[in-house]
Amino acid sequence: MASEVVEVEGHIIDSLILAKILDVILDSGADYRLLDFDIGRTNTDSSRARFEVTTDDEDLLATLVAELHIHGANRVATGDAVTVAADTDGVLPEGFYSTTNLATEVRLDGRWGPVANPEMDCGLVVRPGGLVRTIPMHRVRTGDAIVVGNDGVRVRPMSRPRGPSPFEFMNSDVSSEKPKELLVAQVADRMRLARAAGGRILAVCGPALVHTGAAPDLARLVREGWIDVLFAGNGFATHDIESHVMGTSLGVPVVNALPLEGAHSNHLRVINEVRRRGSIANAVADGFIPGGVMYECVRLGIPFVLAGSVRDDGPLPDVITDVVEAADAMRELVPGVAVALMLASTLHAIATGNILPAGVETFCVDINQAVVTKLADRGSHQALGIVTDVGLFVRSLADHLVPAP
Amino acid sequence: MASEVVEVEGHIIDSLILAKILDVILDSGADYRLLDFDIGRTNTDSSRARFEVTTDDEDLLATLVAELHIHGANRVATGDAVTVAADTDGVLPEGFYSTTNLATEVRLDGRWGPVANPEMDCGLVVRPGGLVRTIPMHRVRTGDAIVVGNDGVRVRPMSRPRGPSPFEFMNSDVSSEKPKELLVAQVADRMRLARAAGGRILAVCGPALVHTGAAPDLARLVREGWIDVLFAGNGFATHDIESHVMGTSLGVPVVNALPLEGAHSNHLRVINEVRRRGSIANAVADGFIPGGVMYECVRLGIPFVLAGSVRDDGPLPDVITDVVEAADAMRELVPGVAVALMLASTLHAIATGNILPAGVETFCVDINQAVVTKLADRGSHQALGIVTDVGLFVRSLADHLVPAP
Amino acid sequence: MASEVVEVEGHIIDSLILAKILDVILDSGADYRLLDFDIGRTNTDSSRARFEVTTDDEDLLATLVAELHIHGANRVATGDAVTVAADTDGVLPEGFYSTTNLATEVRLDGRWGPVANPEMDCGLVVRPGGLVRTIPMHRVRTGDAIVVGNDGVRVRPMSRPRGPSPFEFMNSDVSSEKPKELLVAQVADRMRLARAAGGRILAVCGPALVHTGAAPDLARLVREGWIDVLFAGNGFATHDIESHVMGTSLGVPVVNALPLEGAHSNHLRVINEVRRRGSIANAVADGFIPGGVMYECVRLGIPFVLAGSVRDDGPLPDVITDVVEAADAMRELVPGVAVALMLASTLHAIATGNILPAGVETFCVDINQAVVTKLADRGSHQALGIVTDVGLFVRSLADHLVPAP
Amino acid sequence: MASEVVEVEGHIIDSLILAKILDVILDSGADYRLLDFDIGRTNTDSSRARFEVTTDDEDLLATLVAELHIHGANRVATGDAVTVAADTDGVLPEGFYSTTNLATEVRLDGRWGPVANPEMDCGLVVRPGGLVRTIPMHRVRTGDAIVVGNDGVRVRPMSRPRGPSPFEFMNSDVSSEKPKELLVAQVADRMRLARAAGGRILAVCGPALVHTGAAPDLARLVREGWIDVLFAGNGFATHDIESHVMGTSLGVPVVNALPLEGAHSNHLRVINEVRRRGSIANAVADGFIPGGVMYECVRLGIPFVLAGSVRDDGPLPDVITDVVEAADAMRELVPGVAVALMLASTLHAIATGNILPAGVETFCVDINQAVVTKLADRGSHQALGIVTDVGLFVRSLADHLVPAP
Repeated sequence: MASEVVEVEGHIIDSLILAKILDVILDSGADYRLLDFDIGRTNTDSSRARFEVTTDDEDLLATLVAELHIHGANRVATGDAVTVAADTDGVLPEGFYSTTNLATEVRLDGRWGPVANPEMDCGLVVRPGGLVRTIPMHRVRTGDAIVVGNDGVRVRPMSRPRGPSPFEFMNSDVSSEKPKELLVAQVADRMRLARAAGGRILAVCGPALVHTGAAPDLARLVREGWIDVLFAGNGFATHDIESHVMGTSLGVPVVNALPLEGAHSNHLRVINEVRRRGSIANAVADGFIPGGVMYECVRLGIPFVLAGSVRDDGPLPDVITDVVEAADAMRELVPGVAVALMLASTLHAIATGNILPAGVETFCVDINQAVVTKLADRGSHQALGIVTDVGLFVRSLADHLVPAP
Repeated sequence: MASEVVEVEGHIIDSLILAKILDVILDSGADYRLLDFDIGRTNTDSSRARFEVTTDDEDLLATLVAELHIHGANRVATGDAVTVAADTDGVLPEGFYSTTNLATEVRLDGRWGPVANPEMDCGLVVRPGGLVRTIPMHRVRTGDAIVVGNDGVRVRPMSRPRGPSPFEFMNSDVSSEKPKELLVAQVADRMRLARAAGGRILAVCGPALVHTGAAPDLARLVREGWIDVLFAGNGFATHDIESHVMGTSLGVPVVNALPLEGAHSNHLRVINEVRRRGSIANAVADGFIPGGVMYECVRLGIPFVLAGSVRDDGPLPDVITDVVEAADAMRELVPGVAVALMLASTLHAIATGNILPAGVETFCVDINQAVVTKLADRGSHQALGIVTDVGLFVRSLADHLVPAP
Repeated sequence: MASEVVEVEGHIIDSLILAKILDVILDSGADYRLLDFDIGRTNTDSSRARFEVTTDDEDLLATLVAELHIHGANRVATGDAVTVAADTDGVLPEGFYSTTNLATEVRLDGRWGPVANPEMDCGLVVRPGGLVRTIPMHRVRTGDAIVVGNDGVRVRPMSRPRGPSPFEFMNSDVSSEKPKELLVAQVADRMRLARAAGGRILAVCGPALVHTGAAPDLARLVREGWIDVLFAGNGFATHDIESHVMGTSLGVPVVNALPLEGAHSNHLRVINEVRRRGSIANAVADGFIPGGVMYECVRLGIPFVLAGSVRDDGPLPDVITDVVEAADAMRELVPGVAVALMLASTLHAIATGNILPAGVETFCVDINQAVVTKLADRGSHQALGIVTDVGLFVRSLADHLVPAP
Repeated sequence: MASEVVEVEGHIIDSLILAKILDVILDSGADYRLLDFDIGRTNTDSSRARFEVTTDDEDLLATLVAELHIHGANRVATGDAVTVAADTDGVLPEGFYSTTNLATEVRLDGRWGPVANPEMDCGLVVRPGGLVRTIPMHRVRTGDAIVVGNDGVRVRPMSRPRGPSPFEFMNSDVSSEKPKELLVAQVADRMRLARAAGGRILAVCGPALVHTGAAPDLARLVREGWIDVLFAGNGFATHDIESHVMGTSLGVPVVNALPLEGAHSNHLRVINEVRRRGSIANAVADGFIPGGVMYECVRLGIPFVLAGSVRDDGPLPDVITDVVEAADAMRELVPGVAVALMLASTLHAIATGNILPAGVETFCVDINQAVVTKLADRGSHQALGIVTDVGLFVRSLADHLVPAP
């Protein structure tokens, strides 16, 4: 029989944290015994539980303790964190501590200090001077001091937001049968709130945004200062540009409306012309791109990352074709983000979810329930899935935040 | 008023080609007048239609003719193809001919010759000696002779397969309410037929294959020689390896069955260890990877491409992180492929669809109807969408092709 | 070898009719030989094809000819229709002619006359005096003269609407990636057009309409005269009423917005109170129901049918609990309907699709692509599937048709 | 300020019950204060919590307390249940107690007694002698003693099953990315376990079962005694019969395989012939129906209910066309059911879910994630959603339970 004592603290009852933890224990076939339980008397008090987990398999116990850790339960008996020097570039030492996206603290020389940039599925590197950062595997360099094991690492479980809320954050509630206008209004409110608190707003955009006609509405949001960072791929940027270039050059707006889908090679020609100019910024500067989301980003200096994918045509010259570099470029822009809008994007939304800290409020909007469930379920983000038509959603969101004059 | 005469030849009536062409014309707002119609008397005869397309907008006419071309209708009045030398690396000359994935011929010096490797959304480059190849935009080098305009280029529309068939190729028939055992049997037959004719079989694999428990069945198909080429991403390969490495190292098969999802960081540890060894092949060689799909590929020398994506953890050392290089590596393996199985993959399946010639029989298997529709609709492949559970599908397919002893 | 000569006339090429017919022949394993082909020279001319179908199985030929008939191909060699007297109530004579929903003519005494009310999956009854009507099986009475076999019956294939159109009717084009505002505008146009031509507009409503917050917008459309007939079930009517009764009685609008889903038994209490009053009309009259879609229908005398289903709570007193009677009540209201809006309804939408003639323009709006595909695929309606959020769609539609003052 | 003391007892922590209750309180905007908390020391001990709920709105408090009740929290201050005599047939008295599907007790004359047949969305009627039953609204007769208010009624929250389990009951875990063979094996195990304990097994069947080719496998399960009750609609029964009648009469099995969809009117002809015979049993008796699921049910005396719906053709003579009668017929067969299989059915599955007690283990199998989520979310059943292909699922299930000889 092997056992370990773990504890968890916070709004652990009404935030479902304790329940989830006991669920994980029972599902694994292990047993628990509560040692201590300080329960908050009201819904503003914090609670604390300490309990012993027992199993008859030593390996299972280790796995289980690591799993509980993800949900915010920390081992009680813990000393300083142990580090091992990496012996190969791009490879973590065996037994490395694998991060969550929760707020994390590391104990060094008897004192707990915060991890600078929580990100899940990374290692922890201790820099000279004691600064601790998450480090993606590929960035490890020989000699880096990497934390191994769970000793000396603790995480803080996330609380649900206090007060009444139409959103059930962390519940991954994704039914399509919700009052949509109300949801839109609430998303607008969260954006206003985040903005008022100095937070940045990130939009992650898929090509369906353009296909469903929402690009002008998103451009409006960018123009009026509601988007601080934009992540997308070659498809979104291309179709956004194409819709403006071809609308203008042909001068036949009705054509856009008709399903002469063709104009088939238009996107290739647009990519080709932007490649000729060397960058989207150049193509904006010389007037080739007369409007749209990318145009507004360039004009206003909104930073964006276009990450490449293997299905890309061209691609546009701004696309970062090395996906590891692309993810690193996205990481650069994450600090300060308080709200993330995932708009009809799967690939880039998942990639973004991978690198965001747990506390970022994330709204995943897609018409496909399976996609939304997948996005909202990853990690322990404060993610809300909204199953709706992104075209009508973004239009309505823009109407809330940027009323027509 | 502007007009142009185009013609189309083949099984244009029962393959829906003529209907689709007239549909495109009417949808654009243009008119047509049939000039000539040689209609096949029976279902084995070929038909030929020649008609004049009229519109009052010169630009629209050009767009429309280019669009009709995609569906197999060629301009009648045509001389030799015109080429222009590229003046910038990675950029096609303005007005470049944009390819379809249909069999294509180019007229040079009054003689029609075939394009070596049909691929859609490319340019056409005429090599010294007159060989014509498709060329993706990024591969263009200054001085390359690129075909511009539609003159001197003609395509051959695809016919539907003759004879009774449970598959409605090109109809993108994707209902989930089909007799599945029958469909599986027919896919197995098509694979046998393709194999007998010397064709190669390509599998494009998503991670759900592993999650749904189908990886051992796919490994069986690889082991028995039914898969000649494999395309996938970091996720599929990682989960395939993880399921074998962790099964063995822990020695507790029941753990896999229980939702101790955790073991959460297992995939990271597996990636890390393979990175330490430098390649999947090395990890197979030193016994770290004891079985699975990737193991069988390495053991039998089945070529594979693992294309990177921005959501990848790690990634595995074999993953090509530059997406443009990854697509080029996939292109190398396309010649000879006669059947493509898209198994619970979206990103890599679309990427593969982008580079396959139209004649490759493609089976898109996914549980999500929207995904299947999207895959089956792209290009004018002979694509059949099958909405089903990939786990049960692949098991059943393996049972058909590799009966238990 | 068995053979039969059939012919088809109309816009059979660009409406895909001929292609579909040849497709059916080839899929069955039979052969065809074109005997005669008068092809329309332009897109306004009608075409006519006559061809011989050959197979080596007499039974298969009969099945095939019946199948071709559904697509608008009629046997050439035909005399008068043959009738047999029904010998049992509710049972058609063996070999009965099974109807399509296309415009149909029957030959009696050497003269062709129209069928009064096309509906699919019915029999044809010849009334004294020669009037021919469709008759659902359950309405057959002993002695009714029922048409048997295919002799003396011909149908007229449906044409696609002339002129440029953003809708691809009959193509069941259901992608979610369409410019939605444009689609909404076009649906509004079709409604205006139908209305101007004296046609009636039918709305078939599911409960998600209320859940997504669209009920007030639909009520606005009813109030302003845009809906002439309404079909729904107990769920839609109950939730529509509940949202108004509970909003008013509690007087706490914010409660509606909060997920106190509960109020759980509200719908039961509402049903109970309406039952106490005997009908929705009574509950409107005595002020219990102060507003909403059902309220507007009652107030304006808009006819509605609430058809029961086995999942109903209560049900409301207006619900017709016998489903055969309910379908008959719906049939009474079909004549004159020119446009049908299927709004987030599956069961009632399919039931409605079953009884509408082919020429009714049908718009199927749902967020679930599989549902839309299923609805749009049934029969040979002029059905357009729109994959979108019904809440945002109906709001936008109402804004188009009933601009705010 | 209004307040109320409620308590809840059982495995309230690890079964998520307490968490859900606090969640409901906070979402409503109310506050809570824990008065008393006896926490189980181990995972086999039961816990008990008593807490005060406070809000500043009397109406909200009442609604909230009713809502908490649904989740298993009972008011502490309670006397005997109060009853009021119904004054109208089919109408409950105002303020009626609205049932959950949980095990429920009612206090009369100071003693708690069980409700005989838990069913949600009903009233409670006290019969002379003190027997308490649920009563659907439509069955109320004038003079019935109906419980009003929450006094004297308490419910028992459901626990999650003890021990490790691949199923996360009550979590509505519906991802399609699960190892399907393992799930099938576990469903088979639960069926064996239920059977061993004397429980009955109910199958609720949709027509896709037949379309996907699973009907023969289900027939095998019926034949071998694995199905005790069957609920379906006209569509399932018709297609099941059609596939056997037409297979036999035409004698051309390959035709079934080919998409001569037609034979279009076959289902009508089959319905018509069964109608002529008066019942499915008669049609089995005279040899018209030679096999299939319905045939096996008739032959073995397995009770079934075919509930009508407004989309039905015909319908078959066994279909109960009055939906209220149909639901009552289903209610008759519910007692004793321990496992319910919902197989590719939406309408009948929801109807069945409405009348089952919470303790029945329910497996919802469908290929559409949105449907499965909807089914698994309703009520507080022990429902497990399985997103998979019903055709392959049922075949595999039959192979587990009825191995080939």
